[in-house]
Amino acid sequence: MKTKEKPWGGRFDEPTDGRVEAFTSSLQFDRRLFRYDIEGSVAHARMLGRQGIIAKGEERTIVAGLRKVLSDIESGDFVFHPDDEDIHMAIEKALTERIGEVGGKLHTGRSRNDQIALDIRLYLRAEIGRVLGLIAELKAGFLALAKKECGAVMPGYTHLQKAQPVLLSHYLLAFWEMLSRDEARFRDCLKRVNVMPLGAGALAGTGLPIDRGYVARLLRFPAVTQNSMDTVSDRDFVAEFIFAASLAMMHLSRFCEDLVLWSTDEFGYVEIADAFTTGSSMMPQKKNPDVAELIRGKTGRVYGSLVSLLTILKGLPMTYNRDLQEDKEPLFDTVDTLQASLQLLAAMIGRLTFNRKGMEKGAEGGYSTATDVAEYLVMKGLPFREAHAIVGKLVAFCIENNKTLSGMTLKELKLFYGGFERDIFTRLTVRQSVNARKTTGGTAEETVRRRIDEIEGR
Amino acid sequence: MKTKEKPWGGRFDEPTDGRVEAFTSSLQFDRRLFRYDIEGSVAHARMLGRQGIIAKGEERTIVAGLRKVLSDIESGDFVFHPDDEDIHMAIEKALTERIGEVGGKLHTGRSRNDQIALDIRLYLRAEIGRVLGLIAELKAGFLALAKKECGAVMPGYTHLQKAQPVLLSHYLLAFWEMLSRDEARFRDCLKRVNVMPLGAGALAGTGLPIDRGYVARLLRFPAVTQNSMDTVSDRDFVAEFIFAASLAMMHLSRFCEDLVLWSTDEFGYVEIADAFTTGSSMMPQKKNPDVAELIRGKTGRVYGSLVSLLTILKGLPMTYNRDLQEDKEPLFDTVDTLQASLQLLAAMIGRLTFNRKGMEKGAEGGYSTATDVAEYLVMKGLPFREAHAIVGKLVAFCIENNKTLSGMTLKELKLFYGGFERDIFTRLTVRQSVNARKTTGGTAEETVRRRIDEIEGR
Amino acid sequence: MKTKEKPWGGRFDEPTDGRVEAFTSSLQFDRRLFRYDIEGSVAHARMLGRQGIIAKGEERTIVAGLRKVLSDIESGDFVFHPDDEDIHMAIEKALTERIGEVGGKLHTGRSRNDQIALDIRLYLRAEIGRVLGLIAELKAGFLALAKKECGAVMPGYTHLQKAQPVLLSHYLLAFWEMLSRDEARFRDCLKRVNVMPLGAGALAGTGLPIDRGYVARLLRFPAVTQNSMDTVSDRDFVAEFIFAASLAMMHLSRFCEDLVLWSTDEFGYVEIADAFTTGSSMMPQKKNPDVAELIRGKTGRVYGSLVSLLTILKGLPMTYNRDLQEDKEPLFDTVDTLQASLQLLAAMIGRLTFNRKGMEKGAEGGYSTATDVAEYLVMKGLPFREAHAIVGKLVAFCIENNKTLSGMTLKELKLFYGGFERDIFTRLTVRQSVNARKTTGGTAEETVRRRIDEIEGR
Amino acid sequence: MKTKEKPWGGRFDEPTDGRVEAFTSSLQFDRRLFRYDIEGSVAHARMLGRQGIIAKGEERTIVAGLRKVLSDIESGDFVFHPDDEDIHMAIEKALTERIGEVGGKLHTGRSRNDQIALDIRLYLRAEIGRVLGLIAELKAGFLALAKKECGAVMPGYTHLQKAQPVLLSHYLLAFWEMLSRDEARFRDCLKRVNVMPLGAGALAGTGLPIDRGYVARLLRFPAVTQNSMDTVSDRDFVAEFIFAASLAMMHLSRFCEDLVLWSTDEFGYVEIADAFTTGSSMMPQKKNPDVAELIRGKTGRVYGSLVSLLTILKGLPMTYNRDLQEDKEPLFDTVDTLQASLQLLAAMIGRLTFNRKGMEKGAEGGYSTATDVAEYLVMKGLPFREAHAIVGKLVAFCIENNKTLSGMTLKELKLFYGGFERDIFTRLTVRQSVNARKTTGGTAEETVRRRIDEIEGR
Repeated sequence: MKTKEKPWGGRFDEPTDGRVEAFTSSLQFDRRLFRYDIEGSVAHARMLGRQGIIAKGEERTIVAGLRKVLSDIESGDFVFHPDDEDIHMAIEKALTERIGEVGGKLHTGRSRNDQIALDIRLYLRAEIGRVLGLIAELKAGFLALAKKECGAVMPGYTHLQKAQPVLLSHYLLAFWEMLSRDEARFRDCLKRVNVMPLGAGALAGTGLPIDRGYVARLLRFPAVTQNSMDTVSDRDFVAEFIFAASLAMMHLSRFCEDLVLWSTDEFGYVEIADAFTTGSSMMPQKKNPDVAELIRGKTGRVYGSLVSLLTILKGLPMTYNRDLQEDKEPLFDTVDTLQASLQLLAAMIGRLTFNRKGMEKGAEGGYSTATDVAEYLVMKGLPFREAHAIVGKLVAFCIENNKTLSGMTLKELKLFYGGFERDIFTRLTVRQSVNARKTTGGTAEETVRRRIDEIEGR
Repeated sequence: MKTKEKPWGGRFDEPTDGRVEAFTSSLQFDRRLFRYDIEGSVAHARMLGRQGIIAKGEERTIVAGLRKVLSDIESGDFVFHPDDEDIHMAIEKALTERIGEVGGKLHTGRSRNDQIALDIRLYLRAEIGRVLGLIAELKAGFLALAKKECGAVMPGYTHLQKAQPVLLSHYLLAFWEMLSRDEARFRDCLKRVNVMPLGAGALAGTGLPIDRGYVARLLRFPAVTQNSMDTVSDRDFVAEFIFAASLAMMHLSRFCEDLVLWSTDEFGYVEIADAFTTGSSMMPQKKNPDVAELIRGKTGRVYGSLVSLLTILKGLPMTYNRDLQEDKEPLFDTVDTLQASLQLLAAMIGRLTFNRKGMEKGAEGGYSTATDVAEYLVMKGLPFREAHAIVGKLVAFCIENNKTLSGMTLKELKLFYGGFERDIFTRLTVRQSVNARKTTGGTAEETVRRRIDEIEGR
Repeated sequence: MKTKEKPWGGRFDEPTDGRVEAFTSSLQFDRRLFRYDIEGSVAHARMLGRQGIIAKGEERTIVAGLRKVLSDIESGDFVFHPDDEDIHMAIEKALTERIGEVGGKLHTGRSRNDQIALDIRLYLRAEIGRVLGLIAELKAGFLALAKKECGAVMPGYTHLQKAQPVLLSHYLLAFWEMLSRDEARFRDCLKRVNVMPLGAGALAGTGLPIDRGYVARLLRFPAVTQNSMDTVSDRDFVAEFIFAASLAMMHLSRFCEDLVLWSTDEFGYVEIADAFTTGSSMMPQKKNPDVAELIRGKTGRVYGSLVSLLTILKGLPMTYNRDLQEDKEPLFDTVDTLQASLQLLAAMIGRLTFNRKGMEKGAEGGYSTATDVAEYLVMKGLPFREAHAIVGKLVAFCIENNKTLSGMTLKELKLFYGGFERDIFTRLTVRQSVNARKTTGGTAEETVRRRIDEIEGR
Repeated sequence: MKTKEKPWGGRFDEPTDGRVEAFTSSLQFDRRLFRYDIEGSVAHARMLGRQGIIAKGEERTIVAGLRKVLSDIESGDFVFHPDDEDIHMAIEKALTERIGEVGGKLHTGRSRNDQIALDIRLYLRAEIGRVLGLIAELKAGFLALAKKECGAVMPGYTHLQKAQPVLLSHYLLAFWEMLSRDEARFRDCLKRVNVMPLGAGALAGTGLPIDRGYVARLLRFPAVTQNSMDTVSDRDFVAEFIFAASLAMMHLSRFCEDLVLWSTDEFGYVEIADAFTTGSSMMPQKKNPDVAELIRGKTGRVYGSLVSLLTILKGLPMTYNRDLQEDKEPLFDTVDTLQASLQLLAAMIGRLTFNRKGMEKGAEGGYSTATDVAEYLVMKGLPFREAHAIVGKLVAFCIENNKTLSGMTLKELKLFYGGFERDIFTRLTVRQSVNARKTTGGTAEETVRRRIDEIEGR
């Protein structure tokens, strides 16, 4: 396109360098905003008509033209020209080709600076809706699994050492909690996304008699932004979304880490269905937890996007600077990565087969009821620290003599502390240990079932 | 300390390597949690007594002992021993030294894993309170400045090019908006901080008959955590705080960038009081905006802390892993950096002298009322795109002939478009331009004053 | 594709979930490696033939087939099927379609793990070559500009305050130095890229009698890797490249920051040619330094890629894990971003017009020869700190009385220090100041010209 | 200190705000540079004397005074005053207190901008030396361990699935390779650190007749910097060091991840000596790999420092800006973290006990010689892809019938492929598999022993 023909080309003498056009163009990625750009333009045109800034007939022509452009894009008939710079220009040009000169009236009273802010907000509002739906599905998946597996015991780890036995369902519900916090963060973010920016103009507002509240109502925004300079330079909500996505991905990465571990021959606690694993080109016996590994890896990708955006924003002078164009690719990539990861994990957890026997056997190892013995001694009146020391020596003895705690006789136990009585044998098995932890948030089966009921009651 | 004497040393044969002690110790940084550690322990001891897990007399002895330790630390009489590992051990040891064996009963029914979670939550809850206070002060500072400077005109920039004139007060209130979003984010974060974790034990809860709700009430937590495994491995709230701090610092960095720019000889729009600048050892004439530069630089520091923590959390197997000890230094550093930056900026903005004449003159340059001419033509019925092209040529003519827009005669204007009329001369000055932008969020003086009233009315 | 037909599908019962295929496929981005994948396969096939692992005729058939696939891709006749997983599979399948069963012999003695390592190394070696070429061009551009502008004086800044006058050429050559360090870093990185990995197999090497040295010679690698487990899990060279690119982008971002500043109405030191700027849709008078802004912004993008990769690599168990597939997109994006930025900046700096008069006038402001006065006093025997204090008072006097240093009379000067003599007037102008700084690395015109000669003599 | 008394206070009317002093002071962290600051000042003073800029007697007084200050600091007699701003001021003030007015001559011909650059370069040069020594020790540790354990077989993993058996020594030497690359990167970094910056002044050089080459010789720098503006704004070498440290930490984190895994009850491949583990306050039976976890966690810390510095540098206008003061804490923290981690790991790997039997048994699981069967078939003339498919079915059969590969009879094998012959039984055991991989970089015992000899021969 010749510079003179460009919407901003009035006073330019020299054509834009071709490489500059390629470098500055955002069309190849911002075209995904087309639906929101048109939706926003329709609302803007209706407002212009209502306010008498354009004639009613012009409004109707423009709105119809925009809808035609939308249906052309949706049907795949629309060809984006690489030299259209961005999605706004591409659509406005297409509009003018379809309805003639009057198309040039659409941009009245707005600027690309507030227009792009509107497009991203509309886009992100819709995508947060999708994310919330996917989180709800994944939470439902964890809940269903927790119900199905209720009763199965597994070793609980700290430092990846067996610490205390827990219910598998208790473990699964830990992710339900994490995802609930993610949900809350996305909802909090949505409050700050869901504010109408159009009318901020390039940075100062407009002198034309527009009605921002009407546009907000048409587009279902509960509020309008209150400072035009802030409006065109604000990308907080993009950063906040990517951060919330970073934490959500981090949560998934922790579950995936455990899946990878538990899928090893050594742990052997879970088998992922063939449909969710891949093989090796050289080692035909292998079944790799690729999806879990990739989700874990893609967490790094989302973190990178967060760093990109924060770096871009730091120290920018007010108000809009072209650097801000670099907000979109990290955002889009994060939306895609998060949604695909949530979706795939939700599908995959329905296809896990837990090795309940192996887990229970695992839970029996590592003297994992030692704490129960210490608690027993405390209830007999010993200071915790003293009880702790006694149990330490007891475990050392067991290790040396290759014994389990439940394999000790009362006589042997009394060598370590005279106050052991017969009732100690209600505290030594894995199931006894699990079911003793009844307080809120604990792993006892009755507590976990109560929690499941509570969640379902909501 | 000999390993056997360590609280966890029961079954260890060999002393810990000295370098390992230094490497794993957290006392040099977590000692700042002492107040919260003691506050939490007092509540825990009171609950243990109430539940009959320890005797009433023991409860009283422990609580009194803890208060003695607190007052010793506060008075500076307390010596921390480097080999005490962490603040919990240091305090428990001090307690036992003061009250004897019964001190060993305090740790009943809890673990360092839930104890540290409690300490950080109590600490962060208090610090968020302070942060909110400092944000409120800084917002008040911007508001006061906006009131004081109301009427002053400055050039509004996009791409750091003069775009349209705006009110200085409008610019200042943009930061009021940003800080309000920061405030909202810290409040949202607080909701997730303010949940009581004690009772999660090492990871599985406890078999002792504790009352978590009572501890929560004593410590003024509105809720308790619902899954013990999640509780000991959750550091979401730390990451969320550092993220909210990152955005807040980013906002400050943008204001500081403008301060640095405006303090240049070339812009000359502001002078920072001597008390807030420093000089050069080699160039005596200089007055450097060091505070603004340092706040801008320290934004990078907070970003780094965010990356540290996110990196640590990614892919950690459940539940607690020692890597999590690395959460505290980035958190503490962020709290200090953010609070100092907010405080200093609040003090500094009260000591700025704006060059109102220079700003107004600056606003007059750069043909910054060109958009107003375009809007005028639109109101005369021209499509915006056509108006835009006409104004482009007009500006090119002015530049070539070294004229200003308001210096053009009607006859000259008509060469570019026949429809120009005498009323164009109400749209060509900087003040006319500013005051035309009356819609919500715009820069017209009446709109800005209305916004100030609104804010004060809250 | 049915799972059974997949190269790794031998023991799988169930088809791969469609979403898993999409999620795990890398073809959409790794297809850009096609040339290197084929180049590596040709060398591998030739080695297999030479070693008698495949027959000579088979070797010829395979090599010819690979060349056919290459020319098909280059001519655009080749259709990539989305379900081909990755570029290796796509090419092997295409080969087998063209030459039949014997195509299945190509993968003998290698694995995708060492194959992908080879492809990336070949790719990156070529791209580093291109980067070095572009850096050389940009350096040449700065040098040419430094020669062209030699003699022009500008204000040198610290803290963005005018500090001391310098030559514009001296400023420009500072970037020559930075780019030279970048060059050195890319060359250092290349040493670690340029090592031949094929033969490491999946992780353990191969039992087939391959000749790694021969493959290395065919592909012009000076060395082969020495540990198969390290070989398949090493991505250091990718991280190192992205880091070197991060510093290079950082350097460009600093120049761009200055370009943006200098293009303001307030500084007015440079005009960027129309071909390298864009306008505003709403403000026809504007000429925005978009390219400079975008390069500055894209620095954040490269930083983000660095963080992504480092995050992915941290804490990965040995050896290959699927997370590593996430190395390619950040790498490719960095290559593209860096090359485009270097290229565009090289083009743009040839189209800058410096306002030499404005710069010189700027240099005269801000009492920028104050240090020269202090140095004068030092040469008269005063301790520097005392000299500094005297000049400080002198400057304060000038500011108060609206005088310049060179506008002071000897009599006035003597009020501040009796030892001022007539020769002080050889130290007060901007040019005198510049030309006094003759030591290596200084800004005196003779020193700068000598440096230019030195560089050209290389 | 009163502003007027400050080295830069000449023209200031108002005292610096107390909070500003605290905020801008760097003394609490840059005091660790004291040795280098004094070393640099001694060289500078000697040069000033040699050039006649100060008198010989003055030179002697200053040098003796500096040495006195040094010995006072080293002996602990020196009290740093918090209001001394930075280490340079603290030392210069101490000097003047000791030798009187003549101390004020030391700062002649230099600025804090080039002085701090010198200090950091001297410091970092020394610390890189220490890092190289620690890497060499750790490499020696891995080598010694590889020699000691030579012959032990372990399962090699990809995707954390058993893939092929390897030698434990081969695994250990993989880290030798990684550390060698780290070494090379630190040496490359050192080249760019080891350049003498003094003489760049504040930014423009100096008009005094200094001799930069002489200072360089005194301080053993092979070269001097070539552009004064670049010199005072360059922190590339700091970023490069932190990056090299990031990769080194990443390598350590991967070994630590494996240590954590192998220390689990489930893997059980290694036991870390008591001296390098800690216990649990609640679970006396536990032995936690804290050091490994902390090194893994601290990797995030170093990454964070890298991000901090890169963020700070991006988009800074030339030349020195106060933001650069924020370079030191991330640098110092990285030096400390890296050195402690290297040192501790070197100590710890000497105290690992490998469970050779368990590892060998582990290697036998997972059909890890399947690739060997495929390679056997290839040598019989089958295309690799066909061989792969046959072995896939064979493994599936074994899994279903609970058989091992070496437990199959020839007759059974022939059901899958008629060409199996008796010699297949030389390819089915784990040791046969390992020792078949003889090519350079492979895991055969003879290859690994050859590599050890090569390394020792260096």
